[in-house]
Amino acid sequence: MEQTVHTMAHHKRPYAGYQAKNFLWKASGDGKVATITLNRPERKNPLTFDSYAELRDLFRGLVYATDIKVVVIAGAGENFCSGGDVHEIIGPLTQMTMPELLDFTHMTGDLVKAMRACPQPIVAAVDGICAGAGAMVALASDMRIGTPAARTAFLFTRVGLAGADMGACALLPRMIGQGRASELLYTGRAMTAAEGLSWGFFNSLQASDAVVGAAQALARQLADGPTFAHGVTKKLLHQEWAMGVDEAIEAEAQAQAICMQTRDFRRAYEAFVARQKPVFEGD
Amino acid sequence: MEQTVHTMAHHKRPYAGYQAKNFLWKASGDGKVATITLNRPERKNPLTFDSYAELRDLFRGLVYATDIKVVVIAGAGENFCSGGDVHEIIGPLTQMTMPELLDFTHMTGDLVKAMRACPQPIVAAVDGICAGAGAMVALASDMRIGTPAARTAFLFTRVGLAGADMGACALLPRMIGQGRASELLYTGRAMTAAEGLSWGFFNSLQASDAVVGAAQALARQLADGPTFAHGVTKKLLHQEWAMGVDEAIEAEAQAQAICMQTRDFRRAYEAFVARQKPVFEGD
Amino acid sequence: MEQTVHTMAHHKRPYAGYQAKNFLWKASGDGKVATITLNRPERKNPLTFDSYAELRDLFRGLVYATDIKVVVIAGAGENFCSGGDVHEIIGPLTQMTMPELLDFTHMTGDLVKAMRACPQPIVAAVDGICAGAGAMVALASDMRIGTPAARTAFLFTRVGLAGADMGACALLPRMIGQGRASELLYTGRAMTAAEGLSWGFFNSLQASDAVVGAAQALARQLADGPTFAHGVTKKLLHQEWAMGVDEAIEAEAQAQAICMQTRDFRRAYEAFVARQKPVFEGD
Repeated sequence: MEQTVHTMAHHKRPYAGYQAKNFLWKASGDGKVATITLNRPERKNPLTFDSYAELRDLFRGLVYATDIKVVVIAGAGENFCSGGDVHEIIGPLTQMTMPELLDFTHMTGDLVKAMRACPQPIVAAVDGICAGAGAMVALASDMRIGTPAARTAFLFTRVGLAGADMGACALLPRMIGQGRASELLYTGRAMTAAEGLSWGFFNSLQASDAVVGAAQALARQLADGPTFAHGVTKKLLHQEWAMGVDEAIEAEAQAQAICMQTRDFRRAYEAFVARQKPVFEGD
Repeated sequence: MEQTVHTMAHHKRPYAGYQAKNFLWKASGDGKVATITLNRPERKNPLTFDSYAELRDLFRGLVYATDIKVVVIAGAGENFCSGGDVHEIIGPLTQMTMPELLDFTHMTGDLVKAMRACPQPIVAAVDGICAGAGAMVALASDMRIGTPAARTAFLFTRVGLAGADMGACALLPRMIGQGRASELLYTGRAMTAAEGLSWGFFNSLQASDAVVGAAQALARQLADGPTFAHGVTKKLLHQEWAMGVDEAIEAEAQAQAICMQTRDFRRAYEAFVARQKPVFEGD
Repeated sequence: MEQTVHTMAHHKRPYAGYQAKNFLWKASGDGKVATITLNRPERKNPLTFDSYAELRDLFRGLVYATDIKVVVIAGAGENFCSGGDVHEIIGPLTQMTMPELLDFTHMTGDLVKAMRACPQPIVAAVDGICAGAGAMVALASDMRIGTPAARTAFLFTRVGLAGADMGACALLPRMIGQGRASELLYTGRAMTAAEGLSWGFFNSLQASDAVVGAAQALARQLADGPTFAHGVTKKLLHQEWAMGVDEAIEAEAQAQAICMQTRDFRRAYEAFVARQKPVFEGD
């Protein structure tokens, strides 16, 4: 698969039929909404070298997808993700040279970069354990729906590392505030579901047996919307991260002018005049 | 009016007597607090090409005002603003060339830039519908007082556009957090008044018949304060948006040293020593 | 002391026995946790020219400490700090030339820079009055534990100055949101303890007689953790303040690779395999 993605990097192709090796991948009937399920429930869905790499390559490839418009990411068995596997990842890391370590941290960081760079909004469905790199995957998503059992821990400090992992020191403060983020990153303690909702980490909480469905329903709503424009929203949220206000306004003036020449903009106007619900097609 | 403002751009002059064409403008007796009322209540106070331009020019002119110290912005008839008018703005936009579209998005963006660049703090009184560009006018204000009926929707996506409009992707995440902002911008759903208060969009909620009065009372409090210093606060909040912490501290060292040479600083000290309430004069 | 600190600037030395002149300094038995107590309770612990300078030099020196791993800062007598003393600071400031004023604002700003630059996480224990420069010292700390009586006021405007002081316009919006920060900085009103907790300024609230103990317990927890990695977390939280997301991810890839070559990382792994609690040593 990896070869194929690299080969196709400058072309477009459908991804609904993608054959995942290290997790589950299932596209909706119309191919617009894809759901990734981390699927080693007996270990609470840890990440491995292989699953990091495949996720990174998949999100990089989705830039060129002709079909997928929104991605849902979830875990099997009432847990989201336990992070980097202690035996399969942390053990080997303790034996590596610096260049090898940097290869690893670049790979995990590149997963977050790829999640932020693809035009598809990503909705995380977070139940149970959401820890370490798993918490970062949730944080790197565009929206998060949790359950009352969700326990989200940026627990890098518990394994002797810095809270600075995969962009945590940049992303978490903007999500929940600098002071709360500092506490979670220094102590590694789990954020409860109630805290996550109150602090803006979760967009809503749902029952454990409803959370994936709720994430897919939100994804469906977005997939039925102006998906080209959603990609522009995502791009600008990313671009403006460290931009001055005036420069951000100029960037949006240009970006929105581009969107005003899409057919979806015209479709919305014509539907409004006809007192109908617009049917967006993403172009 | 536009001509006059341009001509006066490098001079100072009073604005209390400003004759508005596309909205109401009323200054307090001492000329320090001005209230803008968007005033097409039968249409929920939409913005038009003309009102955008006049608001932009007015806020640009206020940099040179000799009297106005704080601005309140409100809507008539229990709604704040329904945003760009579908018939008067969205229809024409669907017919425009790219340069014309960019003229439009520059104009709307320039309104936000002008609101952030004038030294007067701006207090929005938000009742009922607060949508699209109207939500951006509220967001671009320095403080916001809402009512329980306030419904604030960044609904650009509903008309086929990106959430990236007039600086929304920069301003909204810093106001309510990156995750909540993402949801509002991708879905276009209305933020309730309770959410707006809980998330930090609104500074307080007031009854519908009290919200403008509350905004004016807050404005009065600021207008009776050290208004030169308020302008410095506003400027630095703007300047430091994308500045490193150390650079921001240096900027404030210089800015505050300037304020320490104002008469208002001495007035405050002398009043304190005399156990009196200081009377600030803004110089 | 100042001379000594300057002389030792490129060397390392213990700080547990530091003899403070303008406040109390007490280190834990193992020298890892130091508690600063602002100690003029009859005046609610104001800052003076001398205490600003000593705090600045102390935090600068702590970069080279061989022992102190976490710092607690508190006030004596159920108040945190009343800020710059009106008689000892504000009076003299009204008589100063511009270069002298800038010397002062650089000194106060340098205190915040030094608090952000030292590798030790700083935990503020905030009871009662927390005002002006005192509020900035709390804000410049990494975490804050308050009491129900804590009243935190960025009251610079009350003395005729801008809210832009010691980095307030940069730090406060990222802690509690841009809109709430704007209100506090423009009006100078006190934030209640409940607001501070709800808005993310305080990490928790404790009873007045328990707050210093709670701060020290949190500090102890951090001091027993991987303290080299904590210093990296603090550095990256600072470095990434105005960095793009992709650049922040690269910075963390490098920083975390460094941490992966510490002995603490190996200790954590070996303890996990042995089903023991890791004993971190900070190297």
